[in-house]
Amino acid sequence: MSFIESDRMHGVSGSIIRELFKMTAAPDMISFAGGNPSPDTFPMGEIAAIANDALLHRGTSMLQYGFTEGFPPLRETLKSYYQKKHGFPTENDDLITCSGGQQAADLTAKVLLNEGDVALCEELSFVGVLNTFRAYGAKLVGVRMEPDGMNIEDLEAKIKANPRAKLIYIIPNFQNPTGFTTSEAKRKAIYALAQRYDLMILEDDPYGELRYEGEFLTPIKSMDTDGRVIYGGSFSKTMAPALRVGFIVAEKNLMKRLIVAKQTGDVHTATLTQEICYRYMAEHDFEGHLRDIRRIYAVKCKRMLDDMEQKFSPAITFNRPQGGLFVTAFLPQGMDAWSFVQEGIARKVATVPGVAFVMDQNVPSNAFRMNFSMPSLDQIDQGTDILGKLTYEWCK
Amino acid sequence: MSFIESDRMHGVSGSIIRELFKMTAAPDMISFAGGNPSPDTFPMGEIAAIANDALLHRGTSMLQYGFTEGFPPLRETLKSYYQKKHGFPTENDDLITCSGGQQAADLTAKVLLNEGDVALCEELSFVGVLNTFRAYGAKLVGVRMEPDGMNIEDLEAKIKANPRAKLIYIIPNFQNPTGFTTSEAKRKAIYALAQRYDLMILEDDPYGELRYEGEFLTPIKSMDTDGRVIYGGSFSKTMAPALRVGFIVAEKNLMKRLIVAKQTGDVHTATLTQEICYRYMAEHDFEGHLRDIRRIYAVKCKRMLDDMEQKFSPAITFNRPQGGLFVTAFLPQGMDAWSFVQEGIARKVATVPGVAFVMDQNVPSNAFRMNFSMPSLDQIDQGTDILGKLTYEWCK
Repeated sequence: MSFIESDRMHGVSGSIIRELFKMTAAPDMISFAGGNPSPDTFPMGEIAAIANDALLHRGTSMLQYGFTEGFPPLRETLKSYYQKKHGFPTENDDLITCSGGQQAADLTAKVLLNEGDVALCEELSFVGVLNTFRAYGAKLVGVRMEPDGMNIEDLEAKIKANPRAKLIYIIPNFQNPTGFTTSEAKRKAIYALAQRYDLMILEDDPYGELRYEGEFLTPIKSMDTDGRVIYGGSFSKTMAPALRVGFIVAEKNLMKRLIVAKQTGDVHTATLTQEICYRYMAEHDFEGHLRDIRRIYAVKCKRMLDDMEQKFSPAITFNRPQGGLFVTAFLPQGMDAWSFVQEGIARKVATVPGVAFVMDQNVPSNAFRMNFSMPSLDQIDQGTDILGKLTYEWCK
Repeated sequence: MSFIESDRMHGVSGSIIRELFKMTAAPDMISFAGGNPSPDTFPMGEIAAIANDALLHRGTSMLQYGFTEGFPPLRETLKSYYQKKHGFPTENDDLITCSGGQQAADLTAKVLLNEGDVALCEELSFVGVLNTFRAYGAKLVGVRMEPDGMNIEDLEAKIKANPRAKLIYIIPNFQNPTGFTTSEAKRKAIYALAQRYDLMILEDDPYGELRYEGEFLTPIKSMDTDGRVIYGGSFSKTMAPALRVGFIVAEKNLMKRLIVAKQTGDVHTATLTQEICYRYMAEHDFEGHLRDIRRIYAVKCKRMLDDMEQKFSPAITFNRPQGGLFVTAFLPQGMDAWSFVQEGIARKVATVPGVAFVMDQNVPSNAFRMNFSMPSLDQIDQGTDILGKLTYEWCK
């Protein structure tokens, strides 16, 4: 027999990036295709000590069923950290932990999006969350992306054109894949449009702490006076991804429903990994650790951008991100980056074609994403040598 | 503003058990209401040693992004364990790990159930999974439950009456809440009906290892010749629930879609907790550990059943489960157990009313569930003293 799949899962394909990884597994491949944080940023010794101590001295509470809302000490620590830093959660909000930042999107979609509802997304955007929306039968509508965030006129036009528009999805800082950061002016404009047209916003902020230059900007959630912004955060880039700990800030009544959704999904997030995040924040120098991470990445980011400026054909355009893990470069308008990326892989440098990040995967994209957190400085130099030559051949 | 919830989440309420827990939090309460495994069964020292060693010596692989399909050594270990024990996964199947047994149900529902599709469930059944199905907009239809499993005639009648019947949900061993085990004859009959009417089966088996007397029975998955059975397992009762590690065995093509669904849900399960399960199985005496758990629970199970037989009014009926964590008792037909349970709580003994486990929560139930894994032997004696007197008053 062959099973009959639910309608909602039709058209959700595995990530193209995952397919790409098979092509790029060769040991002599220089990979700018990944999205992983550098293992150099993992506080390994501290994590080992915390885990051992917690299991030896608080074993039962680490191992017995916990609360769906999350491990209470971590929730309290995160609440005060974000209240001090960004002014939320307010008294109208609550904060829960969840199983990685991805689950914030999954629960949001489960609770808010009917099949056929429209999610307005940055075009290009993070394929993992786009697939989450697809998996609940939502329709994705792309909004033109600029170096300072969504084009506001295009956003409003797309809202008007889609009566079932329900949610705006935004990665405000060092967006994946573009590396773009939404300006304060545009954050305000996007929030104002959400108010005018009564939309919800999912503000997905895994890279917010990873700023290497310039000023930290205010999250949209900090402007949220009427509970329409769901803020998703993650320890994947500030501690370690395989801990699978993220968190959600949302208005209290909405949060009650997100909690029920989480209860039906995985009951609760592993307690041991929450304890690790909690005690690292409470007992170690978390701010100092973030400064260390920023120092490590700032060097790599600058090297890749400088290399690209020196070596890439002027026909290639890109912006200098001030943080995050990625920079996206654009071939001249009308060119499809997929064959460019394949040629790069043939020459042993892997990047990710923009088609992995578009709403309609049948439309070609001239973009390709480059990651600088995983490669070494030498690999960055070597890889951009090869890609630089290729850009000149490609854009003759 | 107030948000507008998705249709699929309408009517999914938080678990009644959760509300009940607030009533039963008094320190002098004897609780038979929980469903937790006993902390005496957690191999605490071994888990601490594994976690510490893994983080110190394999830190990067414990902390970096892992595979959606699960941690490879754990997958391989589980595959050979279940192949030897039950003959699956076959070459047509695959096995992945997931975030607790609950996620097996979540992914199954996401991939298979359209809104309005019918899931045929044991009446009574585990509210956590019933809510998962509800959260995808599925319709629940209860099948009459007998001490040896679903009534087969009722199952066939309900299939015929529901053209959108898609999935049979079954907890084959020491079912939650009833404690009933589906006989081999009925397992075969249920599989035959699934074949005849082209239905899928979710076989949810968190208690399979917890048999204290009698013979282990063959899972339905072992009879599955055409890939229609999804088998869900869990370490929650054999290692510790807060590790949040479960696993799924399903036909390969279906599994590909379950993996995509998991990717959109939480990317992957925490690696450290998977490593703990893997190394405990590989390096310690897992079978001996299971024997220890069975010994601990067998004593409690027998004590509670003997106490009930001695102390409860003959008007109360119940079956002696041969394993698991629960026994469900029934007041005389037509009585609503909810007020009985409330009176029990007033007298400081908590149980769970059957209404927590029914398909239609407006229909009263004469059942109440009693857990024997958490209370001590003294608490079992004291609690059954009080409940025993109450049964005589109630059934005069």
